[in-house]
Amino acid sequence: MSMLRNPSVKYSPFPQVPLADRQWPSRTITTPPRWLSTDLRDGNQAIVDPMDAVKKNRFFDLLVEIGVKEIEVGFPSAGATEFDFIFGLVRSGRIPDDVTVQVLTQSRADLIRTSFESLEGARSAIVHLYNAVSPAWREIVFRMSKDEVRQIAVEGARILRDEAAKRPGTDWQFEYSPETFSTAELDFSIEVCEAVMEVLQPTADKPIILNLPATVEAATPNIYADQIEYFCRNLPGRERAVISLHTHNDRGTGVAAAELGLMAGADRVEGCLFGNGERTGNCCLVTVALNMYTQGVDPALDFSNIDRIIETVEYCNQIPVHQRHPYGGELVFTAFSGSHQDAIKKGFEARQRQNDERWRVPYLPIDPADLGRNYEAVIRVNSQSGKGGFAWVLEQDQGLKLPKAMQADFSKHVQRMADELGRELNASDIWRAFRAAYHVQTPGDHFELVGYEETRAADGTRVFAGTIEVAGRAQSVSGRGNGLISSVVATLKDAFEVELEVLDYSEHALSTGSDARAAAYILCALPSGERVWGCGIDTDIATASVRAVLSAANSAVGVERR
Amino acid sequence: MSMLRNPSVKYSPFPQVPLADRQWPSRTITTPPRWLSTDLRDGNQAIVDPMDAVKKNRFFDLLVEIGVKEIEVGFPSAGATEFDFIFGLVRSGRIPDDVTVQVLTQSRADLIRTSFESLEGARSAIVHLYNAVSPAWREIVFRMSKDEVRQIAVEGARILRDEAAKRPGTDWQFEYSPETFSTAELDFSIEVCEAVMEVLQPTADKPIILNLPATVEAATPNIYADQIEYFCRNLPGRERAVISLHTHNDRGTGVAAAELGLMAGADRVEGCLFGNGERTGNCCLVTVALNMYTQGVDPALDFSNIDRIIETVEYCNQIPVHQRHPYGGELVFTAFSGSHQDAIKKGFEARQRQNDERWRVPYLPIDPADLGRNYEAVIRVNSQSGKGGFAWVLEQDQGLKLPKAMQADFSKHVQRMADELGRELNASDIWRAFRAAYHVQTPGDHFELVGYEETRAADGTRVFAGTIEVAGRAQSVSGRGNGLISSVVATLKDAFEVELEVLDYSEHALSTGSDARAAAYILCALPSGERVWGCGIDTDIATASVRAVLSAANSAVGVERR
Repeated sequence: MSMLRNPSVKYSPFPQVPLADRQWPSRTITTPPRWLSTDLRDGNQAIVDPMDAVKKNRFFDLLVEIGVKEIEVGFPSAGATEFDFIFGLVRSGRIPDDVTVQVLTQSRADLIRTSFESLEGARSAIVHLYNAVSPAWREIVFRMSKDEVRQIAVEGARILRDEAAKRPGTDWQFEYSPETFSTAELDFSIEVCEAVMEVLQPTADKPIILNLPATVEAATPNIYADQIEYFCRNLPGRERAVISLHTHNDRGTGVAAAELGLMAGADRVEGCLFGNGERTGNCCLVTVALNMYTQGVDPALDFSNIDRIIETVEYCNQIPVHQRHPYGGELVFTAFSGSHQDAIKKGFEARQRQNDERWRVPYLPIDPADLGRNYEAVIRVNSQSGKGGFAWVLEQDQGLKLPKAMQADFSKHVQRMADELGRELNASDIWRAFRAAYHVQTPGDHFELVGYEETRAADGTRVFAGTIEVAGRAQSVSGRGNGLISSVVATLKDAFEVELEVLDYSEHALSTGSDARAAAYILCALPSGERVWGCGIDTDIATASVRAVLSAANSAVGVERR
Repeated sequence: MSMLRNPSVKYSPFPQVPLADRQWPSRTITTPPRWLSTDLRDGNQAIVDPMDAVKKNRFFDLLVEIGVKEIEVGFPSAGATEFDFIFGLVRSGRIPDDVTVQVLTQSRADLIRTSFESLEGARSAIVHLYNAVSPAWREIVFRMSKDEVRQIAVEGARILRDEAAKRPGTDWQFEYSPETFSTAELDFSIEVCEAVMEVLQPTADKPIILNLPATVEAATPNIYADQIEYFCRNLPGRERAVISLHTHNDRGTGVAAAELGLMAGADRVEGCLFGNGERTGNCCLVTVALNMYTQGVDPALDFSNIDRIIETVEYCNQIPVHQRHPYGGELVFTAFSGSHQDAIKKGFEARQRQNDERWRVPYLPIDPADLGRNYEAVIRVNSQSGKGGFAWVLEQDQGLKLPKAMQADFSKHVQRMADELGRELNASDIWRAFRAAYHVQTPGDHFELVGYEETRAADGTRVFAGTIEVAGRAQSVSGRGNGLISSVVATLKDAFEVELEVLDYSEHALSTGSDARAAAYILCALPSGERVWGCGIDTDIATASVRAVLSAANSAVGVERR
């Protein structure tokens, strides 16, 4: 049953990093990194229909609004479209003073020059130079020796230095990426980075950005963390470099690699919103940032209106954010299962009693309200849901707070409807099921209240005198009891031979609706011993209880007819 | 620009695990774990429209086909639908002898009994008991002490033992989950598991499965690995337990947590295909298994026809597999970028020269063919693509192998078309661009070949005598040269004053198409010094070269007219 070809012939295990005394597994992330969005570059080059200038501007504005301070805006030497957008952006006035744009270039004099030209007039900018240093690329793609590869980097760095010197009006920063770092020899990457630093002469005040890409994710994320820690510990002049992470998600662990990489000593994270990017995507900046947020670390990025962010990202990329994408997906705060719903409800209740701000709601790692989401989407009802779910929906939608025992009774009706419909139940389904189950506002029931008067007799008892439609025919009836409910019960017994013994009764004002209505719930025993629930809703609290008794009587008739 | 509320008030950092001498970061995964699919339970309870019996059976059959040997099929005590499906499945004969079904139950006598009843007649089965042990659940949901919580587990274990004893016809295994393990006190989880083991008396030959869920992912994945290693090292009677992982993806690191958990000593992984499951989903079994596969470890699961698997999973869950989902997504082997396309092409070429099976293609961590995918989807062309991409597409689609220098010439045409259309270019777009650029099979060109004869003169030179339509008017023309091409060049000069100097020429048979056609490419200089390319395609190789010269002549006319 295993795959056709034994993989061990074709693939080999990724080697360990020689780092016996690694420190990162004992560390935690306590401060946010510098964030670099490459949505407009690595993201844009990986979508079926690349963004036009309108979309690029919209995306850029969104990134600024979120609070991203370093934004890679393109690959200016790739063609006129890219160049023109960047050239226009720099002149558009939409780059705030505290935001720095970045462009990517290969190590060739004409391409680097074009890259600088595209940024003409920028207050500050990062020019990002890369060349491939890893063996597969050296041997298969470029057929170059290590010396030749290092020379390309050094030559590129020289041109960077010289082009920057010609344009003193801009505050230039440099970024260098030894591609594909994660599959290259660590010591060679360090050697090339050192050679680049030798040319660019960074200082602690004006450091170089050394970006260490897992261009293709090729090992478990702890290996990437080992590589980062090894690099940080062995790079001469570490304090003159900002170490930047650039992970991809080929093994589904791009976020983990970035997080462990930060623990391993990196200072900066490159990625895209919702993990767009080549193939399986880049590291998702939203996830890494909000993961920090839930640990009490302010990521310095603002996702407080995540739905609007998703809308823009989906429009620009023409790729949906998946229903289960952490923090952003449509279903990630949703519980269908009854026990989950019940626990969440209790969590919210406990939170209301709680004195502090601390978030501690089962099954919800973050308060949806922090992302601009409300709780309506949290609990949804289908055949997997128990009573917690529909009770929540009924309360949110209709204001009804069913007694616990009545929830259990109603759950059978909901379950039956869910099984029959074979789909999720929405609030109106549940309301319909409730009305049918308890004869609430359902014309055509056996007993229907037309009107009534209640009077107090001389002996202190109450007299109910009312008109009740029975199977469509109005009848005047009356009865006497210690209170309103017992007088209605007596009426039903005398006039219609329906015997109800009231076991429990409760009522409450409805919390929703502009008219102050009330709901009454009644539990009755029949002579057979069977129990039925009734519910009455009315603007008048007394009338609500009369309706509740008639509701129970309708159920009693239903039981008799079975 | 940070989020509205400072998170540090609301959220706190996850505490470290007291494990100074952790071993897992130095380990690698060398053997596959036992796999448990919970698609029909944890997956099914998290989808908008839960599966009906038809879908459940189809999913079950798929899991069997893939090679999953342990399958959690539901929560039989949750309702009639669940019970009936499981009861029916056991009797259906679709459970192979080497596959064991598993059901989940809470710790209550009636629910456990119902669970056993649903499995009546099974050859073997796993009954999976859980109760919540973590503080948030104890304090908020159940309001119970540690002792009470442990007692629930012990009581459940006793009922498991007794119910199993009553039904000796089935080979029973037991699984126990201390919920939500990852946010519970480690020593208390161990204490409860120990108490459960005390009742069930597992042996090394017949171990208990202890499943350690990250029900809600609450920390970086290294913390989960620490928890697993701590648990494995401190559980008395470790050898009598199978340690099972059950991760969720709330922080986007569910796969990483499972992988690091395996390195930390676990034996078994629970999850769903393509990461379905509560909220952000369970650990994706496809990703974990194929991650192993790419390291030379046979996962003992068969994904060699991944597209058919996706089709069934999408049908049953009614949730799409995202375009960027590792291994399965539509875009995960696709390169739009020119430099990526170029590297991939070189990787495939190197692979053809290579002697061994070793997979070493840039940007592709796995051979798409291993998953039943072909290479057509790998390289796609839009405005981000360089010459590598369209050259590949033209070769795959039309069999044309353009000379390198001609690729550079044609790339300008492709780039222009991509910019104009503002969308991805498909193979027919590229073919249309090629025909337009080089006047190939494009009626209405200035020069069109109607027919010709080639004769050898007495002096050994060749004489071209042909009919050429010029702007729609047929003319009989002739010329003489050392060979066919030079005789056509001479004809063009004499008859139409078009001067071409042939700089380069090549031809090849077309590798596709049932009729053996040939393509000829010609590079010519004009008197102005400008260079033009021509291409001719014909079933006759000689005629192809005549057409190539006329193609260049058409370009020359175009250049003159500019």
